[in-house]
Amino acid sequence: MKLSSAAPGSVLDRFVAVIPAGGVGTRLWPLSRAAAPKFLHDLTGSGSTLIRATYDRLAPLANGRFLVVTGLAHEAAVCRQIPELDPSDVVLESEPKDSGAAIGLAAAILHRRSPDIIMGSFAADQVISPDDVFQAAVREAVYTAASGERGKIVTIGIEPTHPSTGFGYIRGGEALDVEGAPSARAVAEFVEKPNREVAEKYLASGEYLWNAGMFVAPVKLMLEHLAANQPVLYEGLTEIAAAWDTPDRDEVTARVWPTLPKIAIDYAVAEPAAAAGDVAVVPGAFRWDDVGDFAAIGRLNSAREEDAVTVLGEGARVFTEDASGIVVSDTKRVIALIGIEDVVIVDTPDALLVTTKEHAQKVKNAVAGLKASGDTDVL
Amino acid sequence: MKLSSAAPGSVLDRFVAVIPAGGVGTRLWPLSRAAAPKFLHDLTGSGSTLIRATYDRLAPLANGRFLVVTGLAHEAAVCRQIPELDPSDVVLESEPKDSGAAIGLAAAILHRRSPDIIMGSFAADQVISPDDVFQAAVREAVYTAASGERGKIVTIGIEPTHPSTGFGYIRGGEALDVEGAPSARAVAEFVEKPNREVAEKYLASGEYLWNAGMFVAPVKLMLEHLAANQPVLYEGLTEIAAAWDTPDRDEVTARVWPTLPKIAIDYAVAEPAAAAGDVAVVPGAFRWDDVGDFAAIGRLNSAREEDAVTVLGEGARVFTEDASGIVVSDTKRVIALIGIEDVVIVDTPDALLVTTKEHAQKVKNAVAGLKASGDTDVL
Repeated sequence: MKLSSAAPGSVLDRFVAVIPAGGVGTRLWPLSRAAAPKFLHDLTGSGSTLIRATYDRLAPLANGRFLVVTGLAHEAAVCRQIPELDPSDVVLESEPKDSGAAIGLAAAILHRRSPDIIMGSFAADQVISPDDVFQAAVREAVYTAASGERGKIVTIGIEPTHPSTGFGYIRGGEALDVEGAPSARAVAEFVEKPNREVAEKYLASGEYLWNAGMFVAPVKLMLEHLAANQPVLYEGLTEIAAAWDTPDRDEVTARVWPTLPKIAIDYAVAEPAAAAGDVAVVPGAFRWDDVGDFAAIGRLNSAREEDAVTVLGEGARVFTEDASGIVVSDTKRVIALIGIEDVVIVDTPDALLVTTKEHAQKVKNAVAGLKASGDTDVL
Repeated sequence: MKLSSAAPGSVLDRFVAVIPAGGVGTRLWPLSRAAAPKFLHDLTGSGSTLIRATYDRLAPLANGRFLVVTGLAHEAAVCRQIPELDPSDVVLESEPKDSGAAIGLAAAILHRRSPDIIMGSFAADQVISPDDVFQAAVREAVYTAASGERGKIVTIGIEPTHPSTGFGYIRGGEALDVEGAPSARAVAEFVEKPNREVAEKYLASGEYLWNAGMFVAPVKLMLEHLAANQPVLYEGLTEIAAAWDTPDRDEVTARVWPTLPKIAIDYAVAEPAAAAGDVAVVPGAFRWDDVGDFAAIGRLNSAREEDAVTVLGEGARVFTEDASGIVVSDTKRVIALIGIEDVVIVDTPDALLVTTKEHAQKVKNAVAGLKASGDTDVL
């Protein structure tokens, strides 16, 4: 059933942008860390932190209707980045509980405020361009989310540009006939990260999109699936949401939040909903990067080149001889690289990473190792 | 002609230890640098700086008779290291003039003070053990230096332990018959740094010793050869030495020192003297290291091992995974090495070097490059 009575404009008025700002960005350690996570960095040299850029990209659609979900420790930094936020626009987690609880709580709070809200969830630490192509896709997603009797949970799938083995994929199904959303399709299935061979088949088929974790959905439909699949989580979030805009918020949250199960929103809602036929996808033809490693930082920046070395960081003074790779500097130190290939160096005031492009994904192990050895001051 | 009237003891009373403390140790940048040269570092983990260890090693022979030649900039640091020094025991160079001027001035000043002095010149930045073997060799060198009518310029040659291509060699000639110096021999020739093949032949022959730049000689004989081979240098040094222990020192030095030619003592004195038959050699069976690169620092220290990584520096917190090499840390930063082989990392508060063992000798190029780019604050 098509969107009927409501004009497209009024559907967009139901849209609230939710920005989960949670991940530490361990793969970018020591640049990104618990005290200064990825979303609080300007990783593209644009002059904006990733969270600010996320806000600005959504602002024309949300028209001031935002909900940022972040850790207690980041409240001040997030509010400095987005002074436009009212206190009621920020949801603080006293401890991290994975995306199921974070996004589920956003859905539950918004549902209490207005059950007709269509939420769109967009992580705070992704890089997207151009904005207008992204915004057009979100608009289609909002129309699709509002379509039919119950609406849809609408993912925005990224049109793949290479056979990535680092992302999950979404296989599109039949086209949906949604007014204002000509490219919306059903989701045939979500698939896990493929190996190289499979990824190449996906790319060649033209049927697969990258799962970027972006979705737009009526909060009511979100909560229905959450209740059906994760009743404990749902009950807890509902109890917190009921108290959220009352004087009882702190008491209830302190009591209930720590007891909630940790589960990703994909497993708690998206995949069961897809199996139930409630998930659609809108392809996005914009450039998208989750800045998953230092190679991504090299790609995304108009870095200066010192011979074959990409240098990021305005203060860095780099001398190179027979060297190649990338230097990310958060200091003003002199860095001399001599006779070393494909190196990745990340220099911060209290921690230094030296690895290679090939091994950069293992940075997570360093963080785990340092945690185990008690060197938590730099994590 | 043998040492005749004077007993061995009285010959040793003529001995003055000269310690040229000049080189920056560029190959150890950024640990060693102009403001904190090699000789002011404890590079062996012994608890003593190299210059202090040099002083202590010579003290039983010199019995308080020292002359340290160093740069104006290092006066305070040298005197902190060796509080035993009187002001008259320190010769300050207003600008570096190579070893010919530095050691020549020491000879000229000592000659003014007493023409019978036998000087022994020992660089401030070498590592030697055990002390008693070294001291026995120096004693033999002093006896040899005092032998005959004019005396000898006596080098102490190091018995080679491997076919080094990084040092010059001394080929020993016929044995000399010197009382108190049974191992003294004539010098057949000085030879330049050989290639590997030649170095192996030298080692196998048993006739060659490493030229460590150590020598013991009557100041009178030193100055005779200097006068014959470098008359301009000789005249200048003589003029400065005549004023040295007078109120005219500053005026004369300021006028003359800058005009002196830059030449190594080897070319100014040792080689011409050898050609004239005035040079002898005493073999030294002690362990000797000029700490020429970071690999040497690895060898000389009881470093701790993190997997295959040698870690120097008490404050360093190092995490390694699939890494090998050496980390020299002058900071308390966390350093994570992942998937990188044979790396050399030198971490100081204002400069970082990342290279490989194979390329470590090219560090000089980095220093030259940074000088050219104006980054002299870290040199």
